[in-house]
Amino acid sequence: MAGKKLSIIVFSGTVDKLMPVGILASGAAASGYEVNLFFTFWGLNAISKRGMSSQPQIDKNYEQMGPMMMTRMQEMKFPMWHQLVKEAKDVGEVKVFACSTTMEFFGMKKEDLADFVDEVVGVATFLDRAEGGITLFI
Amino acid sequence: MAGKKLSIIVFSGTVDKLMPVGILASGAAASGYEVNLFFTFWGLNAISKRGMSSQPQIDKNYEQMGPMMMTRMQEMKFPMWHQLVKEAKDVGEVKVFACSTTMEFFGMKKEDLADFVDEVVGVATFLDRAEGGITLFI
Amino acid sequence: MAGKKLSIIVFSGTVDKLMPVGILASGAAASGYEVNLFFTFWGLNAISKRGMSSQPQIDKNYEQMGPMMMTRMQEMKFPMWHQLVKEAKDVGEVKVFACSTTMEFFGMKKEDLADFVDEVVGVATFLDRAEGGITLFI
Repeated sequence: MAGKKLSIIVFSGTVDKLMPVGILASGAAASGYEVNLFFTFWGLNAISKRGMSSQPQIDKNYEQMGPMMMTRMQEMKFPMWHQLVKEAKDVGEVKVFACSTTMEFFGMKKEDLADFVDEVVGVATFLDRAEGGITLFI
Repeated sequence: MAGKKLSIIVFSGTVDKLMPVGILASGAAASGYEVNLFFTFWGLNAISKRGMSSQPQIDKNYEQMGPMMMTRMQEMKFPMWHQLVKEAKDVGEVKVFACSTTMEFFGMKKEDLADFVDEVVGVATFLDRAEGGITLFI
Repeated sequence: MAGKKLSIIVFSGTVDKLMPVGILASGAAASGYEVNLFFTFWGLNAISKRGMSSQPQIDKNYEQMGPMMMTRMQEMKFPMWHQLVKEAKDVGEVKVFACSTTMEFFGMKKEDLADFVDEVVGVATFLDRAEGGITLFI
């Protein structure tokens, strides 16, 4: 029997949506899921070296509650989303993909991306990896 | 053969995204689907007693069209999303879960949440329930 | 064995989220997937004749990077999302559905929608078509 699998298309670049990506990836990896993350559009920008070093933004729809939540996470010493992704890679079978089409849009090269990126692939390759598991667009 | 199943991770807290949650849940329940809703982040805030009693917000990207749509829904006497969720629970096999991690972020307890919440669970528990069905992140 | 299938609930109306819809649909269709697109809420508005002829909007969260990305797409002569959807229909088995409930909210008729719409259906019909494949909410 094939194992359990979670695949996420990470489209968004705001920290409130990247946190669930990290939490889902680490929770699933710890439970023995194969995890595939495919960073595209604003999500791809978030895992560029420049994106990783810039100030996290919260979705403008939740600006009122956002700072409270960020403060609370820091008080709890809750890890940032990219730390959760890195921890997930240490714990389980987690692959991080970057979208080749978006890299052309941004004029980016693989060396512009965070070190935890495994491979640059197209959308069809990712869909084939996602087949047969839970797949989310975040 | 296992029955049909719809699982939704309800991340968003704007009313325009909560409406499809209610519509999908009630439509699926009426068609005999097992339905699992997992409220997290801004979605969890929306099912807190305080969130339920506050003014519904529309995504800032659609502020121009939002009031027109809300007015039209009221004219049609279309039920609000939380009424649709409650109706779905009366009609079919619908479970409502609250995300334990987000409850820590918000410093919330189960009694702070709407009465239609069945259980507080973690992400891995929810993924296991979602296995083998349609799973959406909204 | 049943073939591969990708189904997308197209909720969003900003061009940065409609582009991935087009890219996923055309990539999947070219790889032999059956593709089902279900336009609802702001996504349905985007495929109305009026929506198709209005200025594309970028998610307010990414206003800083949006214009750069749009300019780059134009320089690359990258097709717009609705051209990608039309091309996908020429290449493979792609169906475009409009959400009946949203059409009531907007007071729209089928003739108000883009020509590439195949059918107006409800949410339960769409879920049944989506069964057994990858399903995304965008």
